[in-house]
Formats: sequence, C-alpha cells, structure tokens
Amino acid sequence: MGQTGRVSFDSDGPSDHLRETLVSRKEVFSGRLLHVFQDEVALPDGRHTSREIVHHRGAVAIVPVLPDGRIALVRQWRHAVERALWEIPAGTREEGEEPFVTARRELEEETGYTAASWKPLGEACVSPGYSRELISFYLATELTQGQTSTDPDENLDVRLFEPGEILDLVRDGATDLKTLGGLALAGRLPALAEVAR
Amino acid sequence: MGQTGRVSFDSDGPSDHLRETLVSRKEVFSGRLLHVFQDEVALPDGRHTSREIVHHRGAVAIVPVLPDGRIALVRQWRHAVERALWEIPAGTREEGEEPFVTARRELEEETGYTAASWKPLGEACVSPGYSRELISFYLATELTQGQTSTDPDENLDVRLFEPGEILDLVRDGATDLKTLGGLALAGRLPALAEVAR
Repeated sequence: MGQTGRVSFDSDGPSDHLRETLVSRKEVFSGRLLHVFQDEVALPDGRHTSREIVHHRGAVAIVPVLPDGRIALVRQWRHAVERALWEIPAGTREEGEEPFVTARRELEEETGYTAASWKPLGEACVSPGYSRELISFYLATELTQGQTSTDPDENLDVRLFEPGEILDLVRDGATDLKTLGGLALAGRLPALAEVAR
Repeated sequence: MGQTGRVSFDSDGPSDHLRETLVSRKEVFSGRLLHVFQDEVALPDGRHTSREIVHHRGAVAIVPVLPDGRIALVRQWRHAVERALWEIPAGTREEGEEPFVTARRELEEETGYTAASWKPLGEACVSPGYSRELISFYLATELTQGQTSTDPDENLDVRLFEPGEILDLVRDGATDLKTLGGLALAGRLPALAEVAR
C-alpha cells in the first residue's frame, strides 16, 4: 500500500479537514428509481479518487404502535435480496413531496391504518458509503383501521407483532436496518439488549 | 391506477404467495464498488415488472465498547451525502472473505483497537428495496489500543462517545442506519427511548 490516509484522535471540531470536493461527474445509469453517478473527487490533500454513488429521492418509515404495544409490520418480497422481509411501513418520497405527507400516505396504503397522533423521530443516512438516500422516521399512534390501496406491483402481508417477536426476526435476518433503527428510535426494542449480553 | 396489488392480513406462513421470479437481467453499470442491474421479474399473478438493483459485496460493522461504557466512533467524509458522519467502524468484505475476518481487520485499521472478545450480533439487509447489501454486526470488547492503517483514500477521525452523546448525533442527522442498528443490537441505546416519549 505504501501511502495511507490520515487518522486523527479526539477531533471534535469542524470537519473541513475531511472534506472531499467534486471535480467531475458522469451519470452512468438513469433508471425509474435509481440514478447512478461516477464522480471524481479531490481529497483533502489534493489527490483525486473516484466515488460511485446512487441517487435516490429519499424515503420515510413509520413505526405504527397500537395501544396494547403491538407494532404493525408489513411483509413483501424483496427481489434485491431474493427473500421476503418483515419491515416497518415505508415508502419513497415523490418528487418534491414533504416527508410527513409521504408518511401518512404510505401508512394508509400499506396497512390501512390512519393515525391521529404523529411524532417525528429523526432521520439517518441509509448507506452513506454509496447512497444519497436519507430516511425520515415517524411514530404513529392512535390508529384507526381502514382500507389499504397498494401500488399495482406491490403485494403485502400485514401483521401485528409483539416487541418480543421482533427479536426472532432479527435472529433470522428477516428484517432490515430501517426497521431496527426505527424501532430503536421509538424506544420499542427493550429486550434486544438481551441478545448481546 | 385501477389495478392494485393485494394485501393479506395476519398471514404468518410461508411467503410463496409474495415471491417474484427473475425473467431477465441486464447489467447497466459495472464499477469498482457497485454493479447495477435492471431486472425483469414475474409477479405472483404472472404480470411482469422491472426492478433496479445494486449488487454490493456486503459489509460488516463493529460496536467497540470500552470497559467504562464509552463507544469508539469514526468520522469520515461521505461524498454521497456531502457531509461528514460519525459512524461505528465498518467496511466492505473482500471477495470471498468471511465477515469476522473483515471485522477484525476494519476495527484495527480504522481505530487502532484490537479486541480480545468478539460476539456476533446478527445481520440485517441495508436497503432491500434496491440493494443486495447485507451487513453483519459484531460486538468488540476487551480492547487494546494499537496502530491505525487506513486505505490511501480514507481520512478518519476517531473519538470515544458516551452513550448519551450519541443521542445528539441522531438529533442532528449526523449518523447512519448501521450505527443506530448496531448500537440497538448491542443494547447500547438505553436513553433513545426518551426521544420518543
């Protein structure tokens, strides 16, 4: 390797010493959902390197909690990983759409529930090594059951889970990071600590 | 819209009624890190649709916990989101590499720490709507400080965080889903519940 990057300890100030700046960009794929770019960037020491990144409109995810503490999850086939996963309801934002508008729409479309109480739980980058996607989380409570209406190519199962049952999903690798993150932000993973002790 | 997908309630059995099968695949981008495919799939009812997916070799993430409960995070510039993020140490698996081997290597390269005790915490899909990436989590304890040795194009800050300080990162959107998920699996997000109540 020879040349290595730089590691600083206990740095807590601005991040300017880490900043990479865009030199040139080439769009290498333009799809229905994804846009892929091959970027050349300048590192802090002036050398150049390439970065491959995926643009995505961003998403929202909703933690729908019933009065008895059960949580509504949806199961769908995920072609990218060739299996069905149980996940908190979520969806991609339409162009220019406010995240909260997406959240209300997706909760109702995917589960049939509408919520009288909504609370933002924060946001996080999904996979910042290559994806621009940011996900915004909401807690939805005071739920009323209504009608679902999914997209034409969406087929879903909906089921209410006890918090303890979600541990089994994690152990089976049958869920995803947004579900773990959303439940953690909602304070609904109390027993997960037991897995690690 | 007219036609809509199907939603089943309280289905808890096999997921065959959700399965999509690959009809044809076209590689639309082949990069250093990412491979992007445009797939045609058959839905359960026989209709066809397209899916855009990103192949990725998979990753590991490590939750390094000091005896006093502090957690070592690394900060790096994330070009995809145009900002620096504090994250648990992580890295992409080399071709054919066992996740645990990647985990030991990345912890030492990024933070300088070696760990005498390792515990697998489970795995989760990162963004299954379009990414094949699966991430495997490990808890690393009994840490000894040594030398870092990063990749030539990696520049990192390393700092120890009190669990409470990590709440501020979440509130500022200055972290990512693998960090939330890893800390949740390690039982190190006790106070996050307060955010939601």
